[in-house]
Amino acid sequence: MATAQKLAATINGVAVDSLFATIEAVKATPSNAKFRFRIRNQWDTGSKNCSTVATFSGAHKELSHPKPFTLEADEPAILLGKDMAPNPVEYLLHALASCMTTSMVYHASARGIQIEQVESSFEGDIDLHGFLGLDPSVRKGYQGIRVVFRIKADVPGEQLQEIVQLGMRFSPVFDSVTNGVPVSVAGERL
Amino acid sequence: MATAQKLAATINGVAVDSLFATIEAVKATPSNAKFRFRIRNQWDTGSKNCSTVATFSGAHKELSHPKPFTLEADEPAILLGKDMAPNPVEYLLHALASCMTTSMVYHASARGIQIEQVESSFEGDIDLHGFLGLDPSVRKGYQGIRVVFRIKADVPGEQLQEIVQLGMRFSPVFDSVTNGVPVSVAGERL
Repeated sequence: MATAQKLAATINGVAVDSLFATIEAVKATPSNAKFRFRIRNQWDTGSKNCSTVATFSGAHKELSHPKPFTLEADEPAILLGKDMAPNPVEYLLHALASCMTTSMVYHASARGIQIEQVESSFEGDIDLHGFLGLDPSVRKGYQGIRVVFRIKADVPGEQLQEIVQLGMRFSPVFDSVTNGVPVSVAGERL
Repeated sequence: MATAQKLAATINGVAVDSLFATIEAVKATPSNAKFRFRIRNQWDTGSKNCSTVATFSGAHKELSHPKPFTLEADEPAILLGKDMAPNPVEYLLHALASCMTTSMVYHASARGIQIEQVESSFEGDIDLHGFLGLDPSVRKGYQGIRVVFRIKADVPGEQLQEIVQLGMRFSPVFDSVTNGVPVSVAGERL
């Protein structure tokens, strides 16, 4: 990591000096590591609904995105929607892809590894017997997800695989999706 | 379900006649239930990357969205990004929110339950000791996610809770996130 710091303040577009400063800030005050992310969702009709991503907190600060982001969801016609937006299970694949990519890039940058290009494909299988409630032995969610990363970097083959492993080892969404997360749900009258 | 069919072909914006037709099509030919969703992701620089959602397959058909959807991801400044788009863990919350909402609405519609309004809040905690590799006992992903649904419907209190339960029971993303999914990852040179 010291080597990377000497080479450049920014590697792969990642400000590694800021990354090391973040690590120091967490070491100095462990509670700086606590982050909370949130969204609000509003149902429109049928399969259409929309999330707003506006605020979050971290390092003892309440923070806001420069403007709230809105994310629409819909379903394709074969799943009774109007196909105006990606569907929820496609968003899950995007969450996983974007997180594994960023985690890989940040951790490679911290190690001083230059990456030229990263592309990836994600696909997952769902059997509607689960969602439709036709067979309780069939799960509702993805039965499995397959990922292929294609990476351009001037490194030997084993280091290429090491870069891929960084995405698996450190990605918060990869951990959440592979190991599961406890989700508590409450309902209120509006 | 027969009652709902007699009442209207569309409830809550859901074509329940098509929903029942889908159930019959799966009962007649179980392999019609097999769906495969996919995305491609391209890294830009630093924390910026972009997914394309174009095709999927289901009921023995290769299918396309009317146009490919693009989903950008970034990180806020405190996490070393330019804050041009939601971050991956916020996308995960949106995937969960949109899926629970749609699952709730579809299954309520199949039961003939009219819903006027649905809003929800999702929040989750992450401790950066995991992502930064500072403490192997701290998980990288969400430690927990808390959900509150607010529903407007002319139903008694227990049926309101039953509507919320439908989202938990049938949502593919809720199942994926709470129970975990096997993810296989391969790396290739580009």
